[in-house]
Amino acid sequence: MDTFLSEGEIMPRVNARASCGRDFHCCPDISIAIETACRAGYDFVCLPLVNPRFKREFMSGPAKDRKCALTRSDMCLSSQDWNSLVVGKTSPWFQLDSKHYHTRKNSELALKEELTWSAHLGLPAVLMPLRSRNCVNLAQCISEQVTTSYYQQQYWIQVPLVSPADMCDPVIEGMDTDMVDDKYEDTWAWWNLFRSLCDSNKRLGVALELTADLPSNEVMERWLSEPVKAVIVSTSLFLTNHKGYPVLARPHQAFIKQMFKLEAQVIITGQDRHPEKTIRAYQQYIDHLWQTQDPLDTVSQFAKGYEDFLQSPLQPLMDNLESQTYEIFEKDPIKYSQYQKAVYEALKDRVPLEKRDEQDVVIMVVGAGRGPLVRASLAAAQEIGVRIRKLYAVEKNPNAVITLENMKDEEWGDLVEVISCDMREWEAPEKTDILVSELLGSFGDNELSPECLDGAQRYLKEDGISIPEKYTSYLAPVMSSKLYNEVRASKAERGKPPEAPFEMPYVVRLHNCANLDKPQPVFTFVHPNKDVVIDNCRFKSLEFNVSHDAIVHGFAGYFDSNLYKDVTLSIVPDTHSPGMFSWFPIFFPIRVPIMMSKNSTVTVDIWRRCTPKNVWYEWAFRCGGQVSPIHNPKGRSYTIGL
Amino acid sequence: MDTFLSEGEIMPRVNARASCGRDFHCCPDISIAIETACRAGYDFVCLPLVNPRFKREFMSGPAKDRKCALTRSDMCLSSQDWNSLVVGKTSPWFQLDSKHYHTRKNSELALKEELTWSAHLGLPAVLMPLRSRNCVNLAQCISEQVTTSYYQQQYWIQVPLVSPADMCDPVIEGMDTDMVDDKYEDTWAWWNLFRSLCDSNKRLGVALELTADLPSNEVMERWLSEPVKAVIVSTSLFLTNHKGYPVLARPHQAFIKQMFKLEAQVIITGQDRHPEKTIRAYQQYIDHLWQTQDPLDTVSQFAKGYEDFLQSPLQPLMDNLESQTYEIFEKDPIKYSQYQKAVYEALKDRVPLEKRDEQDVVIMVVGAGRGPLVRASLAAAQEIGVRIRKLYAVEKNPNAVITLENMKDEEWGDLVEVISCDMREWEAPEKTDILVSELLGSFGDNELSPECLDGAQRYLKEDGISIPEKYTSYLAPVMSSKLYNEVRASKAERGKPPEAPFEMPYVVRLHNCANLDKPQPVFTFVHPNKDVVIDNCRFKSLEFNVSHDAIVHGFAGYFDSNLYKDVTLSIVPDTHSPGMFSWFPIFFPIRVPIMMSKNSTVTVDIWRRCTPKNVWYEWAFRCGGQVSPIHNPKGRSYTIGL
Repeated sequence: MDTFLSEGEIMPRVNARASCGRDFHCCPDISIAIETACRAGYDFVCLPLVNPRFKREFMSGPAKDRKCALTRSDMCLSSQDWNSLVVGKTSPWFQLDSKHYHTRKNSELALKEELTWSAHLGLPAVLMPLRSRNCVNLAQCISEQVTTSYYQQQYWIQVPLVSPADMCDPVIEGMDTDMVDDKYEDTWAWWNLFRSLCDSNKRLGVALELTADLPSNEVMERWLSEPVKAVIVSTSLFLTNHKGYPVLARPHQAFIKQMFKLEAQVIITGQDRHPEKTIRAYQQYIDHLWQTQDPLDTVSQFAKGYEDFLQSPLQPLMDNLESQTYEIFEKDPIKYSQYQKAVYEALKDRVPLEKRDEQDVVIMVVGAGRGPLVRASLAAAQEIGVRIRKLYAVEKNPNAVITLENMKDEEWGDLVEVISCDMREWEAPEKTDILVSELLGSFGDNELSPECLDGAQRYLKEDGISIPEKYTSYLAPVMSSKLYNEVRASKAERGKPPEAPFEMPYVVRLHNCANLDKPQPVFTFVHPNKDVVIDNCRFKSLEFNVSHDAIVHGFAGYFDSNLYKDVTLSIVPDTHSPGMFSWFPIFFPIRVPIMMSKNSTVTVDIWRRCTPKNVWYEWAFRCGGQVSPIHNPKGRSYTIGL
Repeated sequence: MDTFLSEGEIMPRVNARASCGRDFHCCPDISIAIETACRAGYDFVCLPLVNPRFKREFMSGPAKDRKCALTRSDMCLSSQDWNSLVVGKTSPWFQLDSKHYHTRKNSELALKEELTWSAHLGLPAVLMPLRSRNCVNLAQCISEQVTTSYYQQQYWIQVPLVSPADMCDPVIEGMDTDMVDDKYEDTWAWWNLFRSLCDSNKRLGVALELTADLPSNEVMERWLSEPVKAVIVSTSLFLTNHKGYPVLARPHQAFIKQMFKLEAQVIITGQDRHPEKTIRAYQQYIDHLWQTQDPLDTVSQFAKGYEDFLQSPLQPLMDNLESQTYEIFEKDPIKYSQYQKAVYEALKDRVPLEKRDEQDVVIMVVGAGRGPLVRASLAAAQEIGVRIRKLYAVEKNPNAVITLENMKDEEWGDLVEVISCDMREWEAPEKTDILVSELLGSFGDNELSPECLDGAQRYLKEDGISIPEKYTSYLAPVMSSKLYNEVRASKAERGKPPEAPFEMPYVVRLHNCANLDKPQPVFTFVHPNKDVVIDNCRFKSLEFNVSHDAIVHGFAGYFDSNLYKDVTLSIVPDTHSPGMFSWFPIFFPIRVPIMMSKNSTVTVDIWRRCTPKNVWYEWAFRCGGQVSPIHNPKGRSYTIGL
């Protein structure tokens, strides 16, 4: 089991309505603008920081020595209103990457002036457009801002979903598909270049400009792994329904709903094209989309508020779980019913129908915790009508043993024997027919189920059954600047090398994250293990193909298990056991993200290493000439204690 | 000026003879082997750690339970001999990257056993072969070793210069050149994959196996940037000269001499093919190559012992130089004679031949130091026969002023006036005809010559001359795992971010380093500067093409300067002023090395940023999708104080 443990600090945030802003191209009176927008149901406004026609000249030119106020006074709004209601927009004439020295230099100085002003006002965010991949000098200016100013203002970088050149290019229309693909300007690549130059600073967000045409699903899915703070929707994209109200086409609706999952806000831009219904109608429509989102499934509900929160994997072997933890896991609606099914099927095979009167069985539940597997086993036996001679409930946590003893007294009686002992050390009085355990982690073997069951199989009969009988880990490379930044923000524990946060896996509800290819199987363990020399070390190299430009920020790990024959548990996305929430995926980071170009291959190498004292993983990434170092050599940053 | 300052700690190492080892394929008696080799003039031996036929089986197989000593006892040599005379070789049967589990596993366990044994013996180095790019699991094993063991044993990875498959491949022989290039196995890529997986650990070295055929010069030059510890030369590569002695072909000689520059040792392998001359003849020949190396040029002699030593650039504006530093720079045999020539030419143009009797000139030397430029100016005037009315020697360092005052008393007399003042603050009593300065750093403007001369040009006559009148910086991407490791080993100063060592330039005598393309010009400054608004900020993007697979570890910086018209100084490799040693190149590192595939382009973006208090550089690298963050944003790690 490996999922999020409720800790007071993290509270689910649930918004009752969409957050929607109104964009103004120019703004003669800011108070009136805000009042109008608020009355029409908008939560904030976007305003130019400086009058669009007020172009300053710093180096030379007629306006060089012009003397007057740069823009409206900060006195026209209260601090609180500046702080909460206004997103500032930089001047549209900026060309920071112009080849002409004076244009570039003027733009640099004017941008700096506007950013300083917006910080003075305390605006929550500044919106600025990215118009092409020619953005290196703009990135330098912003990189200086985000590196040094203490004020935590956000920069929303406005990127069109489809580049303007692509939307109505007559050359493209005449070309065949292959050529179009090459010609296609990937606006994600603009953003990626920009933010890479800015070292993926957390203060940078994306404001995605919805376009009439939408790119392919694969291209759009990449945005799900980016810090999308806002979606900019022009009034010109709205259709008019039969009642005269503005509505969006289905693909646009779907896209906005996807962005809602990232808690993106919506900004309505452009003139009111439905004056009879007023500008309010657009906000109402966006809020309607918000209200008509699909309800969350069980797992999402359970995970609400814990998205992308990094958690160290449990070490139940070294640490004793707490009561609260047991309680959460015991609530899983699926896991124990699958165990019950598995025990049922095992008993069915073990004791043929005609022998049910004479033959009884011994069951051992190892790692019994507070008893849910004992209960499932007893229920299965009852259901199939096989007699259990003895059920041994072995548990190493003395606190859980107290619960088990009480259950025995109150409910189970002499049929169940509670053994307070580590399963690897217990000297069993007899051998068992069925050995039931649940020692699985998000990556299958990462809570050391193999080592524990190797130790416990001594007391399994020669033809006895282990439940689970097999489990396999899976992995897939993922892109997520959110997770990358979360890992980067962690500090290495004392005594660990500085790269330690990048050399350990995290259990995490993956959310602002995209899988770059289908998961592939990694390590498989089968129980009982009848090898002459048992070797739980493993090594695997896996190749993944990526169809579009992307960044590898690490890989996601999953597992599936055959409890018995075709009774399975799975957290692999395509085969996930519906409603089961006991395991979130696991995330293995990479020290230096790898840039992949479209249709290229990344190889993930992974080792499971063991000593008599502990177990750990090492991993590396290779893509063309880009090669990561092997992470966590000799378990220097992270091991799992035996 | 920017070169190495002699500090007691670094001593030049000059070896009187080549270090040469003898390789044994098997070794029945180790003492006899060592004695034989030493008597024949060899410095060390290479021995198998375990008898080549003693293959152990750990998992299963007939030898699994064999009981006997793994190899000869450690008692057969003294510790000191093990430590200094023996390089251990791992068993040739290892296949750590076999697809067969048992082969791989046996190799892993046996390798580990041998490495443990070699550490127990305290051998200085272990030699092991790299046979293909299929080496990921071997890299994992070695990565664990180098990460954790405290003992500083080296691992010499044996790599052939040309892969065995290429040397006699009948398919290749029939192919046209283009195809051969594609088919060609780049053994450097094997090494690069291996060491990248091992995080470029400093304990890994290369033992290059000389092959009958040599690859192209470009391929070989890359090895000059690698930690080549040894060259393995087979006796089969030797020819026989007319006296019956073994000799190498010229290309082989040249290659070995190049490797001598990296202080590589030579290992002679294979049977004695010149028994009449004995095995000693090979060692004598190698030593002959050592003795007949070209003598060092002036600059190399000066720099001996300081190769690849990272030094922070001088900040003569903020710090006062010491006497010793002045003394070193004043010894430069070229710089001052070029200044004298420049002043001579300037005076020639300034005072026409016919006016030499009536017209005199004022010269100001700003940053006069201990007087070498004063001396050069006076000598130039004397030579051309132009009268100097007054020479002002302006110097801000009060300690150097003492020297100047003494020179004036003893030598120069009233002609020279010594001004103890910062040139930017001095209120000159008159304007000057010629302003002489030497404020140049290795990267031209990096000691703030532009800012100083902008401040001093107030007292230059309208048509006056600045010497220098122009300077330009240059840069080229370089590969050097040595420099990368040196930077990585530095710790950030207190109060600086952890990445600080990667965000500052270093003055360094580049040695174990390869330029990946020709240097290109970066920033140019012209004096006097007559712009309306003087702007010493700069921004440039430069593209470089790389012909072979390579890694970018940063870029090297250089400069050239026109002192006056065609009188120049240069440290750009192709135009370097012969014998001038006042400036070593400058090195700008990169946080994460970029892997380049052959025939690809890397773009270097560089900014010169200024505030009234200081100046700094920011830089970034782009290669395809690989984009570095902008280094040193806002000068957070390094600035040059004004």
